[in-house]
Amino acid sequence: MFKIIKEDKRSSARVGLFTSNHGKVETPSFFAVATQGAVKGLSVKELDEIGIDGLLVNIYHIYLRPGIEVIKKSFSLHNFMGYFRTIITDSGGYQVFSLENFREVSDEGVSFKSHFDGKRIFFSPQVVISAQLDIKSDVVVPLDECIKGSSLYKDAEIATNRTIRWAKKSKEIFDDLKNNGILFFPILQGSTYLDLRKRCIEELVPLSSSGICIGGLSVGEEKDLRYNVLSFINDNVPKNFLRYFMGYGLPGDILEAVSLGVDLFDCVVPTRFARTGTAFTDEGEIVIRNAPYTEDFSPIDKNCSCYVCRNFSRAYIRHLINVNEITGIELLVYHNLYWYKNFMERIKQAIKNDNFLEFKKDFLNKYNKNDN
Amino acid sequence: MFKIIKEDKRSSARVGLFTSNHGKVETPSFFAVATQGAVKGLSVKELDEIGIDGLLVNIYHIYLRPGIEVIKKSFSLHNFMGYFRTIITDSGGYQVFSLENFREVSDEGVSFKSHFDGKRIFFSPQVVISAQLDIKSDVVVPLDECIKGSSLYKDAEIATNRTIRWAKKSKEIFDDLKNNGILFFPILQGSTYLDLRKRCIEELVPLSSSGICIGGLSVGEEKDLRYNVLSFINDNVPKNFLRYFMGYGLPGDILEAVSLGVDLFDCVVPTRFARTGTAFTDEGEIVIRNAPYTEDFSPIDKNCSCYVCRNFSRAYIRHLINVNEITGIELLVYHNLYWYKNFMERIKQAIKNDNFLEFKKDFLNKYNKNDN
Repeated sequence: MFKIIKEDKRSSARVGLFTSNHGKVETPSFFAVATQGAVKGLSVKELDEIGIDGLLVNIYHIYLRPGIEVIKKSFSLHNFMGYFRTIITDSGGYQVFSLENFREVSDEGVSFKSHFDGKRIFFSPQVVISAQLDIKSDVVVPLDECIKGSSLYKDAEIATNRTIRWAKKSKEIFDDLKNNGILFFPILQGSTYLDLRKRCIEELVPLSSSGICIGGLSVGEEKDLRYNVLSFINDNVPKNFLRYFMGYGLPGDILEAVSLGVDLFDCVVPTRFARTGTAFTDEGEIVIRNAPYTEDFSPIDKNCSCYVCRNFSRAYIRHLINVNEITGIELLVYHNLYWYKNFMERIKQAIKNDNFLEFKKDFLNKYNKNDN
Repeated sequence: MFKIIKEDKRSSARVGLFTSNHGKVETPSFFAVATQGAVKGLSVKELDEIGIDGLLVNIYHIYLRPGIEVIKKSFSLHNFMGYFRTIITDSGGYQVFSLENFREVSDEGVSFKSHFDGKRIFFSPQVVISAQLDIKSDVVVPLDECIKGSSLYKDAEIATNRTIRWAKKSKEIFDDLKNNGILFFPILQGSTYLDLRKRCIEELVPLSSSGICIGGLSVGEEKDLRYNVLSFINDNVPKNFLRYFMGYGLPGDILEAVSLGVDLFDCVVPTRFARTGTAFTDEGEIVIRNAPYTEDFSPIDKNCSCYVCRNFSRAYIRHLINVNEITGIELLVYHNLYWYKNFMERIKQAIKNDNFLEFKKDFLNKYNKNDN
């Protein structure tokens, strides 16, 4: 299900081939976020035009609306969405544990209030795995307990141990249910404590055949601690395991993580930034809704060959964003995701050409040159 | 600029060919509304896929944001929007006169407060014509005074006379300025009073070479009075004039108006209905966000061959609308405009085949059969 094609000699970056029930994905890859079953503002046709490799859908949201039963009745999440490439569903853990004041955790699972109608919901390892299998996700992820990066050791240890127990329980349930070709990727927790990370790796790697999720990072910890953990994971997780860093992905962050052996990313950044009027370019992010772009008739990124850059100006997109036209968001999401796709392609090409570190350096120099 | 191709023998319906600086449009046709320079949720590529014949852009909105100067600097509104089919700009009169409490009218023009920043703006015939010529619209429309359908004769007469004076003044300005190939379509006012309509027609038809706008209808008057006026206009405006009914267009209304000699429509209905979760089908409008569609995995309209109906279910679109995903609006706008396009094609075909009245009857029977 995961095969390494090429390894960089001077870093831990690698190119791999990941196969799911819905096709092959060359890694490093970036999956777009389709929280509620759609990428903000785009249709499937546009995702295919851009060449999006796969999507992350949030089981927490889907579970609440439209509900698992509706999707089961349409056969699968893929059928429901009309999307036929790889879909990963997350465990809901991250969302549930973000609802700090509305949840109660026990060893059985977590009880929480729905964010939209206040109804009380209970997520157990069983509920979460069954839901993901019911909708025929390509990669299912067990319920985990995600804690803040600044957590004390004793709190981190409790959460880590619970995550491990839930993952084992989840794997048993997964094995008992129909799971033809569906993959099970446990989530590594343990905050920034390496012994907890080690315990997690030792206990969770045996539960998976081909891949593992990296959780509990980019949740408030310092960057050097994060890289320390990534490096530790890289050294201790089997090389032939796909490493999926969940919810992570500014361009510079992706480059560092790739150099530390990470293969897969998802992140709301390209879509969320679009909604607030920010575009990615090789020369850094530009806040296109700002005044300097009022009469700027050049494309968002002069090096980009996407539909948006070939046809529309910064001035036009700025106007649309400023007058709250959803077409403006749509065009920016399109460009941002295209830019990300192209960015990942360049990373892969650089690894294949044995010049990943040069690419990384050149890219960052150009990307950050306008920062003061 | 307008040529009749085929006339129905049993009604005043006709097929025509309208030519602007940006190509040919076969009529009867429905233009999509791009109030602020974009059709809600769609990109130009999608408009072309659907086969939209042209757009109506509101000069009132464009004047306020991004402003005429910005568009002039990008050469034309077409260039700014990346849209290269016919664009009609309206006069702003309708919008300005909707701001009842914020405007002061005099013979010189109308002073009003911008709806978004409260800044005081003055629209005169000169300002409005210059703005439309500056941005190189295909059809410019002079400032008019639009009053409610229930207005008293004396108020209607004042507004009609002012509309006539402004139209004459506007034509002089239009002739003085560069207007290569741009068309000037005056707006007929006069409420439901036929003598005022007559005066308008007599004074305004000579100002135009090929087309005229029908204003001051569908503003609160009874339907029989409206059809009476349409019929009067049909009898008194030269046959070879394109008749453009502004801001009008439920399907049944379009059929009646076409049978009374109307050639061109624009209306927010297909886009606005989409935003509130209503879809057009041959069997009437369906409120797709409602509960009955929760597990309805059929397409919006089983007879529709648009991208949306070929790929997505009512259940999926209902879900997206209910969780406020803008992709849901986008898909519904796409379908609704495609449905309208197809509807207009069927009208044209029926006129060409000498069975317009049969088509009208059959269509309405089917369309209204679920109404009680």
